[in-house]
Amino acid sequence: MADKSKDIRPEARVAKGFRDIEAAELKGLNEMLSVIRGIYESYGFDALETPALEYTDALGKFLPDQDRPNAGVFSFQDEDEQWMSLRYDLTAPLARYVAQNAAHLPKPFRRYAVGPVYRNEKPGPGRFRQFLQFDADTVGAESVAADAEMCMLAADTLEALGIKRGDYIIKVNSRKVLDGVLELAGIDVGDVAQAGKRLTVLRAMDKFDKFGFAGVAQLLGRGRKDESGDFTPGAGLSDKDAGIVTAFLTAAQGDRAGAVARVRDIVKGNSRAEEGLTEIEGMMALVQSGGYDSAQIAFDPSVVRGLEYYTGPVFEAELTFEVKDEDGNTVRFGSVGGGGRYDDLVARFTGQKVPATGFSIGVSRLQAALSHVKGKAQDAPGPVVVLVMDKGEIAAYQKMVQTLRQAGVRAEMYLGSSGMKAQMKYADKRKAPCVIIQGSDERAKGEVTLKDLIEGAKAAAAIKDNKEWKEARPAQLAVPEKDLVAEVKKIVARHS
Amino acid sequence: MADKSKDIRPEARVAKGFRDIEAAELKGLNEMLSVIRGIYESYGFDALETPALEYTDALGKFLPDQDRPNAGVFSFQDEDEQWMSLRYDLTAPLARYVAQNAAHLPKPFRRYAVGPVYRNEKPGPGRFRQFLQFDADTVGAESVAADAEMCMLAADTLEALGIKRGDYIIKVNSRKVLDGVLELAGIDVGDVAQAGKRLTVLRAMDKFDKFGFAGVAQLLGRGRKDESGDFTPGAGLSDKDAGIVTAFLTAAQGDRAGAVARVRDIVKGNSRAEEGLTEIEGMMALVQSGGYDSAQIAFDPSVVRGLEYYTGPVFEAELTFEVKDEDGNTVRFGSVGGGGRYDDLVARFTGQKVPATGFSIGVSRLQAALSHVKGKAQDAPGPVVVLVMDKGEIAAYQKMVQTLRQAGVRAEMYLGSSGMKAQMKYADKRKAPCVIIQGSDERAKGEVTLKDLIEGAKAAAAIKDNKEWKEARPAQLAVPEKDLVAEVKKIVARHS
Repeated sequence: MADKSKDIRPEARVAKGFRDIEAAELKGLNEMLSVIRGIYESYGFDALETPALEYTDALGKFLPDQDRPNAGVFSFQDEDEQWMSLRYDLTAPLARYVAQNAAHLPKPFRRYAVGPVYRNEKPGPGRFRQFLQFDADTVGAESVAADAEMCMLAADTLEALGIKRGDYIIKVNSRKVLDGVLELAGIDVGDVAQAGKRLTVLRAMDKFDKFGFAGVAQLLGRGRKDESGDFTPGAGLSDKDAGIVTAFLTAAQGDRAGAVARVRDIVKGNSRAEEGLTEIEGMMALVQSGGYDSAQIAFDPSVVRGLEYYTGPVFEAELTFEVKDEDGNTVRFGSVGGGGRYDDLVARFTGQKVPATGFSIGVSRLQAALSHVKGKAQDAPGPVVVLVMDKGEIAAYQKMVQTLRQAGVRAEMYLGSSGMKAQMKYADKRKAPCVIIQGSDERAKGEVTLKDLIEGAKAAAAIKDNKEWKEARPAQLAVPEKDLVAEVKKIVARHS
Repeated sequence: MADKSKDIRPEARVAKGFRDIEAAELKGLNEMLSVIRGIYESYGFDALETPALEYTDALGKFLPDQDRPNAGVFSFQDEDEQWMSLRYDLTAPLARYVAQNAAHLPKPFRRYAVGPVYRNEKPGPGRFRQFLQFDADTVGAESVAADAEMCMLAADTLEALGIKRGDYIIKVNSRKVLDGVLELAGIDVGDVAQAGKRLTVLRAMDKFDKFGFAGVAQLLGRGRKDESGDFTPGAGLSDKDAGIVTAFLTAAQGDRAGAVARVRDIVKGNSRAEEGLTEIEGMMALVQSGGYDSAQIAFDPSVVRGLEYYTGPVFEAELTFEVKDEDGNTVRFGSVGGGGRYDDLVARFTGQKVPATGFSIGVSRLQAALSHVKGKAQDAPGPVVVLVMDKGEIAAYQKMVQTLRQAGVRAEMYLGSSGMKAQMKYADKRKAPCVIIQGSDERAKGEVTLKDLIEGAKAAAAIKDNKEWKEARPAQLAVPEKDLVAEVKKIVARHS
């Protein structure tokens, strides 16, 4: 009977690809979000919160992986048999919101949003199915000044968070330039039948950082076999066409400031690419006059960005310092955010083109990066714990706690049912700066004993035996009950 | 062709029962959350964030409506064919978390959590399918001191938010007392076959505030016909058994402090109810010695609470001031939160009883209440807007914006493509305190014109005609460009 009931017990486990976030990490996270919020607001963006669930058709399907239609999104039918999805980013819901509320919104509409997004993808190390994004978008602005602003916002945000100049770069490219290069390489970018080929080429370009010239050339041609022997089929471009793509990618090697001019030579005559380059030049002129140099914000032809909806400039915020990956290899930290221009996303609903651009921070990635830069977030000090020496006196202990709280001290009474030893262990686990003890002796004298746990731990390390400990009783003092608040505040101040 | 493409366009609409939250409301919300967080932390609770999605079996089914099994929860199968659900509260995920992490957690474990929860229920006015909860829980504490603390936490939180003493009450009841009364009324509360009857009686009791003595008596007996003629079937209790229940409910009328003693008379001999009453007495003694009177925290036999998992004391935080409902009737504002003891929730996983208690604020309800008390949240002042008078000069305008931001002024350059009139309209809509204008005249003189929009609007209301306006140009001044920051700061300070 007992065994049977055990069989039907559910297993207590967080769902695969999801995770719990505990107090110390949340503290660091909230501090970080508050810095980002400060920068975004200083740029004039206003907050907006849209729901986690949307009608599937209102979100649309723009996730990178075209091979599995509708994959990537958590979806289900509601009781009206309408398909609903968990948002996979904050941009698709923004487009829905703008289309729905266009009449009353300022034009351009500038909003920031922070919240979890959900991807129904295979989880991996550091890759979760729920993660936080922090986005800013300007909807209804055609000018490249809006794109330039996104890049400056990205740079300012990273610096405000403590990432040093030289440790990050905002890379800029343009879908127009990419599509122009694809055209030059013989791909009709408007032809749905060639969409697969186009995607294979873009993915190959995206691998330039990782595989370099030779690897990308293989992926553009017949394909590439990796170290494990796995074969990735290529895009099947001719050597000449593949050469155009690789020449484009390598044109940006060397001095970043001259890259636009070198690429302009390569794409000469392709109006789409030339238009894209002119936009990038416009952006670069603005960021340079704003005091950002090409080590901070620069053109980079290898930036592709996965989401399908981009139509113009795209940006990627990359951290350039090196860390060890899971396998112990030294790698650049890599991308912590990105964005771009998506002029057609609102038009999906309204039929009217609404030019828009935005930038999104991958908050968890960035927080991981900051822990490399600043070290792990410190635990916040725990509450002062009033021990329960005598169960008949909990009203008195409760009152001490109240007095402390009213004086601004984080405090609690021990609420379990265990004895002194377990209570001390509890206070240690909670990282309490001190515990307050009032047994019958202290009560008779109108006193309380304060035990400084942090000093106590230090002293304990220095004391050799139990007898010596008992005689010395370090970091422990008896004070009149009326001095409780003042004395506790002294201890708390000492350790904060 | 054009018509056809229009047909397949999705409609831009937020999903039924969901809503967007805009900047002014978010500002009030975040201020409110920060006050609540402050109180919860002062009580010693630590933050925890669990994911929005959990395995369905790990959440369990404890929502009020037993008539539709699994209703109320948004669920779907993932690609491994495991059922997943969006969390419907923050307590069920906490139980999962504690069972999963018991080994490394302090005992008792005290955490707070804030986040959206999701209910697959029929939406109504002010009733959404995604809403925020703010919870505190103590897991692993048997003592009624933990329950008493929840009630004090609730009272302190409401007062910290500006709800005056007398405008709220924390009502306390006990599932043990309720079950005892049901037993006295002839219902076997352990018998699954009588679960429906039990639920009907509890629902009837829950309606005491609304329908009073006579209505509840009907619902306990044969049933009740409402004004529209709709008939709600009753629990079918005999007059004698129904009388026990109504006597219990009315025992708390009159002076609240004496209610426990009056109910003790009624339930005499039922050990379950007597045990529950003793616990309530223990709680009341603690809150009274803490300085909370029976107008703040009091026993109330009509409190039931919907969730199934409660096992002991239950609490309901109610606002007692009156507001108009949708139909224009004057009603008490009602519940803004509640909670109770749930000793079996962790045992679902582990088989070991882990006594636990918690309190949850319905954040949106409470925010609505605060807007009654304090008036609607004020719009935050918008950014200073630098107008674009000359598209060739955007680098210069962009620099002004940067200078302002670096000086701590929220600022942006107009990023649309419209003329002066639309730009002014934009600045108005953004609630900009002022706009900055630099045309060729100003540029030649090294000046900028500042236009105070708030003063300007006041002046405009007092000026009769366009000619007078043009001559006066109120609230507008030309300043040397080097004084830009200082002069803008003066205007911003004037309006904040």
